[in-house]
Amino acid sequence: MKHKLAIIGFGTVGQGFCEILLQKKEYLKKKYDFEWSVVAVADFAYGNVYNENGLDVEEMVGLAQKKEKFVKDAVDWETLELIERCNADTVCELTFTDLKTGGPAVDHVKTALASGKSVVTSNKGPAALMYPEMKKLADEQGVKFMIEGTVVAGTPIVNLAEGPLAGCEISKIRGILNGTTNYILSEMEKGLPYEEVLKSAQELGYAEADPTGDVEGYDARGKVTILANVVMGAELDIEDVACQGITKITPDDIKFAKEQGKRWKLIGSVENKDGKVTGSVAPEMVDLSHPLAGIMGATNALTFTTDLLGDVTIVGPGAGRIETGFSILTDVLAIGKR
Amino acid sequence: MKHKLAIIGFGTVGQGFCEILLQKKEYLKKKYDFEWSVVAVADFAYGNVYNENGLDVEEMVGLAQKKEKFVKDAVDWETLELIERCNADTVCELTFTDLKTGGPAVDHVKTALASGKSVVTSNKGPAALMYPEMKKLADEQGVKFMIEGTVVAGTPIVNLAEGPLAGCEISKIRGILNGTTNYILSEMEKGLPYEEVLKSAQELGYAEADPTGDVEGYDARGKVTILANVVMGAELDIEDVACQGITKITPDDIKFAKEQGKRWKLIGSVENKDGKVTGSVAPEMVDLSHPLAGIMGATNALTFTTDLLGDVTIVGPGAGRIETGFSILTDVLAIGKR
Repeated sequence: MKHKLAIIGFGTVGQGFCEILLQKKEYLKKKYDFEWSVVAVADFAYGNVYNENGLDVEEMVGLAQKKEKFVKDAVDWETLELIERCNADTVCELTFTDLKTGGPAVDHVKTALASGKSVVTSNKGPAALMYPEMKKLADEQGVKFMIEGTVVAGTPIVNLAEGPLAGCEISKIRGILNGTTNYILSEMEKGLPYEEVLKSAQELGYAEADPTGDVEGYDARGKVTILANVVMGAELDIEDVACQGITKITPDDIKFAKEQGKRWKLIGSVENKDGKVTGSVAPEMVDLSHPLAGIMGATNALTFTTDLLGDVTIVGPGAGRIETGFSILTDVLAIGKR
Repeated sequence: MKHKLAIIGFGTVGQGFCEILLQKKEYLKKKYDFEWSVVAVADFAYGNVYNENGLDVEEMVGLAQKKEKFVKDAVDWETLELIERCNADTVCELTFTDLKTGGPAVDHVKTALASGKSVVTSNKGPAALMYPEMKKLADEQGVKFMIEGTVVAGTPIVNLAEGPLAGCEISKIRGILNGTTNYILSEMEKGLPYEEVLKSAQELGYAEADPTGDVEGYDARGKVTILANVVMGAELDIEDVACQGITKITPDDIKFAKEQGKRWKLIGSVENKDGKVTGSVAPEMVDLSHPLAGIMGATNALTFTTDLLGDVTIVGPGAGRIETGFSILTDVLAIGKR
């Protein structure tokens, strides 16, 4: 039987995910006995569509790339109604992140879970702001709420901690969780001041026009909150996480670190001390011999400190259309493969 | 119901595994609803014991630490008979590695699988020499043959590739798979010749009296063969893997690499080119900016090159009593947790 998907938000990640689904159709069937159909798509730009027997995904990706609206299978249901009424097994919430209110994503997730559908999301909003509540709702409904894509794109973090590291107790997680700031800090080592590097990062598309969310550490803070609540089982609010960005780092600071055999990194960390979990985001001078010191540019990395294995570090891409699309696939596969 | 274990080989890893089981008894029950009992232990030094209702593991660990034989529940069955007749769900094969013949471990594994028991092992022999055959037997019997501990101790490699990376196609695996040689190469950067570093490594217990298996690359070759056959689905013989060790590296070579901004590493690699899988072990000059260059001493690291995520690198301990004991726990948990 095909695993039926609803895709809410057909932007970069939604389209990337669909491209992977199309490209890997045969592979997924052969290797994992996994077959899929996309029954519902909702997007504020392209419209809402529904077909309980499966939509024409290839055509829809083509339309979206030409910025044209969906026509076939169009419905006049609002998105929440679509989520509730559709016959999807799993709802993929891929709309924009709003770390203040959670945005419409929160209602999308709640509605999906309440109507007995699993949710997979790369949206940091619902995961950072209300994971404990959503997880409880999912458990009550006997469905899944999976969020691998909210931290370090598809690089396995949550699924690594919960799968292959199962049995280890994790006392600390520390890492580089934001590619934009890591890129800026890497470039500043060439002796350039912060403002100049930020400007060229914006021109290259590595930083947004309003870079606040990245450079003030808010994006990393959202991820730290998620790690604390998902991996450590805490119930932190995002404001509980102390947060300092990189805007005050000067070329002199960079030079000073260099002279000491160190390097500035924006480090997000979560620590469990005797059952009390705390989180923080702050620039730190990391020793050059530390695995995190070598992580340059847009790459992300996380070190888990465990009781049985000591330190285990994973390094991988922290963003990207296909890389984040994969995070959705991996969680959907975990739910739907036989 | 308790998951029933047989432990074949009660040396460093077997005792380390039992210590974890004892120490984590409550945690495993609470977090994973996993309860265990050890019903059989076989060891050529301490004897063979069996109790279908569970042995006194704590006492046995104590006896082994005092180098005393087991008395309670002793049986005069040979090990193969014990494996066949015991009521274990899973047999943990933890005897010594023999990369030439596979040693008695091969018969232990075969007998366990043939009698319908799952096998978890950290023994490179059966995994490197006959994984495809053993896996087929396990599949026929509807049981598992799991080998996480054969490569990089408990640091997740196989379980990372098969779990959280599921859906990615892996075209290349490259890494530092042997701690002894990595330690020697790290120490040689101080300007010391190979022979001198080897001698102090032997004195420190980092290298064996007969270091051939490590320094000629044979240990890494076994792991490369396992990765090729388990992760890439190949059917390589260990001799198919080209192998060169580190014995010919001189202080001049080390200096030459340094001058070029590089560093010698013994690299094991597996590559899948259009469905043809090849493996090799050889010293390479790695660029200092590469994540593998920063891996010093006894730490191991592996980079997976994938179609959807690009490069994903994992760094962790490559040896150790508890670290390898954990590899057994993680595989047993995957089989036995509810």
